[in-house]
Amino acid sequence: MAQKPSTPKGTRDFNPEQVAKRNYIFNAIRGTFQTFGFQPIETPSFENSSTLMGKYGEEGDRLIFKILNSGDYLAKANSEAYETKDSNKLISSISEKALRYDLTVPFARYVVQHQNDIEFPFKRYQIQPVWRADRPQNGRFREFFQCDADVVGSKSLWQEVEFIQLYDQVFSALKLEGVTIKINNRKILSGIAEVIGASDKLIDFTVALDKLDKIGEEKVKEEMLNKGIPQSGIDKLKPLFTLSGSFESQIESLKGILETSEEGKKGIEELAFINTAISELGLNTTTLQLDVTLARGLNYYTGAIFEVAAPKTVKIGSIGGGGRYDDLTGIFGLKNVSGVGISFGLDRIYLVLEQLGLFPETVTKNVEVLFINFGDKEALFSLKAIKELRLHGINAELYPDAAKMKKQMNHANKRQIPFVVLVGEEEINSNMYTLKNMNSGEQFKFDLEALIVHIKNIE
Amino acid sequence: MAQKPSTPKGTRDFNPEQVAKRNYIFNAIRGTFQTFGFQPIETPSFENSSTLMGKYGEEGDRLIFKILNSGDYLAKANSEAYETKDSNKLISSISEKALRYDLTVPFARYVVQHQNDIEFPFKRYQIQPVWRADRPQNGRFREFFQCDADVVGSKSLWQEVEFIQLYDQVFSALKLEGVTIKINNRKILSGIAEVIGASDKLIDFTVALDKLDKIGEEKVKEEMLNKGIPQSGIDKLKPLFTLSGSFESQIESLKGILETSEEGKKGIEELAFINTAISELGLNTTTLQLDVTLARGLNYYTGAIFEVAAPKTVKIGSIGGGGRYDDLTGIFGLKNVSGVGISFGLDRIYLVLEQLGLFPETVTKNVEVLFINFGDKEALFSLKAIKELRLHGINAELYPDAAKMKKQMNHANKRQIPFVVLVGEEEINSNMYTLKNMNSGEQFKFDLEALIVHIKNIE
Repeated sequence: MAQKPSTPKGTRDFNPEQVAKRNYIFNAIRGTFQTFGFQPIETPSFENSSTLMGKYGEEGDRLIFKILNSGDYLAKANSEAYETKDSNKLISSISEKALRYDLTVPFARYVVQHQNDIEFPFKRYQIQPVWRADRPQNGRFREFFQCDADVVGSKSLWQEVEFIQLYDQVFSALKLEGVTIKINNRKILSGIAEVIGASDKLIDFTVALDKLDKIGEEKVKEEMLNKGIPQSGIDKLKPLFTLSGSFESQIESLKGILETSEEGKKGIEELAFINTAISELGLNTTTLQLDVTLARGLNYYTGAIFEVAAPKTVKIGSIGGGGRYDDLTGIFGLKNVSGVGISFGLDRIYLVLEQLGLFPETVTKNVEVLFINFGDKEALFSLKAIKELRLHGINAELYPDAAKMKKQMNHANKRQIPFVVLVGEEEINSNMYTLKNMNSGEQFKFDLEALIVHIKNIE
Repeated sequence: MAQKPSTPKGTRDFNPEQVAKRNYIFNAIRGTFQTFGFQPIETPSFENSSTLMGKYGEEGDRLIFKILNSGDYLAKANSEAYETKDSNKLISSISEKALRYDLTVPFARYVVQHQNDIEFPFKRYQIQPVWRADRPQNGRFREFFQCDADVVGSKSLWQEVEFIQLYDQVFSALKLEGVTIKINNRKILSGIAEVIGASDKLIDFTVALDKLDKIGEEKVKEEMLNKGIPQSGIDKLKPLFTLSGSFESQIESLKGILETSEEGKKGIEELAFINTAISELGLNTTTLQLDVTLARGLNYYTGAIFEVAAPKTVKIGSIGGGGRYDDLTGIFGLKNVSGVGISFGLDRIYLVLEQLGLFPETVTKNVEVLFINFGDKEALFSLKAIKELRLHGINAELYPDAAKMKKQMNHANKRQIPFVVLVGEEEINSNMYTLKNMNSGEQFKFDLEALIVHIKNIE
């Protein structure tokens, strides 16, 4: 026998149970996006390379999957690169398309391309796969879904308030308790950098600060010093390392640290506005927490920064994130379109729900009734009933072959089908159906109408 | 300003209205698959090239999108091919992965790979995009969705009966009347080829016969003669060209033509079985028609062949097809797994529904209520109400900025939002909401409970 075939490294098949569980999460997210007024769009799986390249930094460019041109692609190969066998330099002459790396850049491209047809502010959501040539590892794949919602064309902070509510509603719908929504603001980070005399080292500063949880205060200070941040500045950070307590008390501490920074004060004002609104509106199952060390995607975000942490009992990274960016579409020539957006990490949410046993049992329920096949005459009689059952929304099927009874019953058991119907000579003559409950073993005889009522009452 | 970005040739963006309409079709298909007992699986967008190459013929191989290896891909380039600049020969050394070309080969790979975990007969459905480097033209795209359902592990003809019922139920659900389900059988075609002394020219024979509709009887005969089919054989085809009337009368004519062919008679028997069962079970909106010229995918199908034709008023090709294949998984080393399957052509069904005006108006309904934003105090009051509305399943949103009233009303009109709610000082003080019906212009004041009831009653 030939070698068993497999999927490429970092990719996965999903079996029926996994698809059902994934759809359970997708539906919760999609449904909430819709009640919040977001509209779906979809973009192609591949884009022109020029749309993607240079948008994610050098590392990102390397991780983008490139599609080889069709036909005699070497005919147009860059001859210098070809002669020197320069893989990197040759790419653009033999590959014009590339697989989507995220949903944000294609969305920016969409907005610019269709700007005349879009009514702003535009609230869109998008749930599609993306591809990255990353080294596969536990929980990191080369093909995975992103679930994004963004608003473009408004600077209103009410959107930030709405997104926090949205996170809360999705995790409530999934019955996942203990989720923390962390929030920070780019302006706070810029303000702190300004105050400690490290405005020109904002990235180094935030990269180091971001590691506080992992490496501790002393190592963070060491790294800052190594990056050229003055000791006098680092000393001013003291209150930052010990920030704790309620959102409000942290805001008060920050006011002290940032009193000389206009930008920092603006950041505080924004955070306070959002926190006040959320306090008024209330959250169901999540908690909003100010985390001044949060700096994800800093190059990109200009205002609020979000990151969502799974319940502490589950050892897993963030399950969502996002923020405000003031110039998303500028890369495609459309200036002054402010946006804010969030994303859900489907694969990680899946792992969390699995670990906590939060998938409802009904999610993987598929076929409810299997009709045992005793021969062509019985099969035809059965299919007439099956047709009626399906019209009543009951998932039903006929075992295709008149195999041995035991084999058919085993099939029902293995597929966890809760009911089988037995139709033999006697049932046909009396126009009745024998229903067997596969869990209890009980058997009843019903006419078609009673059969439907019985199954519908139990499911 | 930079040049407006665009999508690659043959690919499409879908705006919210298009996504909603496509989902309407997907949901009808998916829902029916499920009531018929099919279970969903998903496979990765790209496969190892060895899984795909050589499975679709030379033309197919050309049309498969290849993904360039990551990193220094030229390091492993085949040096002979590199020196002679042989694009075709170089591919396998610089590209190990390729985008899915259809859902059938990945499904075969899935069945072989997971054979020990699958309970046969296995009824699976799969709704995912596929990619082909075809020349884009009207209604043909480089990225498009396929919607497939297959059963593997049973030779029972009841599956063919079920698939015809399934087609009927999907098109009934879509309220599309006048669809014809054409059926043929590979064994009939083999039998005819045998009878006319052209068994060794089965492909040439069926390719010519398949053109009967387009080029007429005389040209078909000419082509057959050119391909070396003897005149004496072609003469025997006379009754075939004039086959008409009911399914039953066509079966009778075929019995005459095929009385010396065992295989042909087996084909007739199968068709008759299916037709009798369908007559007993009945079809809602579709018609089953025997079409002996139907030969699609002949290399592949071994029994029944299906093709679904749109209503005659719509000039469009087939909107679905399928058939039985006796050795799907043989290509991956697993012998004797018979299968039968069908496919729906999403893009064409979309065009048909659009042309006939069959998309329900409610499909594109999105946001039901927009709250006008008069300022922060009013916005917060509004968001409290919006939260309640959403919990009652009403899609509601707040205009993010306290822009001019006219601008906000225009926004509601352009997005075809049916209701706006106005909340000012007076409403806050009296805890009431002014609801304006954007179609009739009528305005009413409600408390929150009455507001919810009113909107839910009208939607």
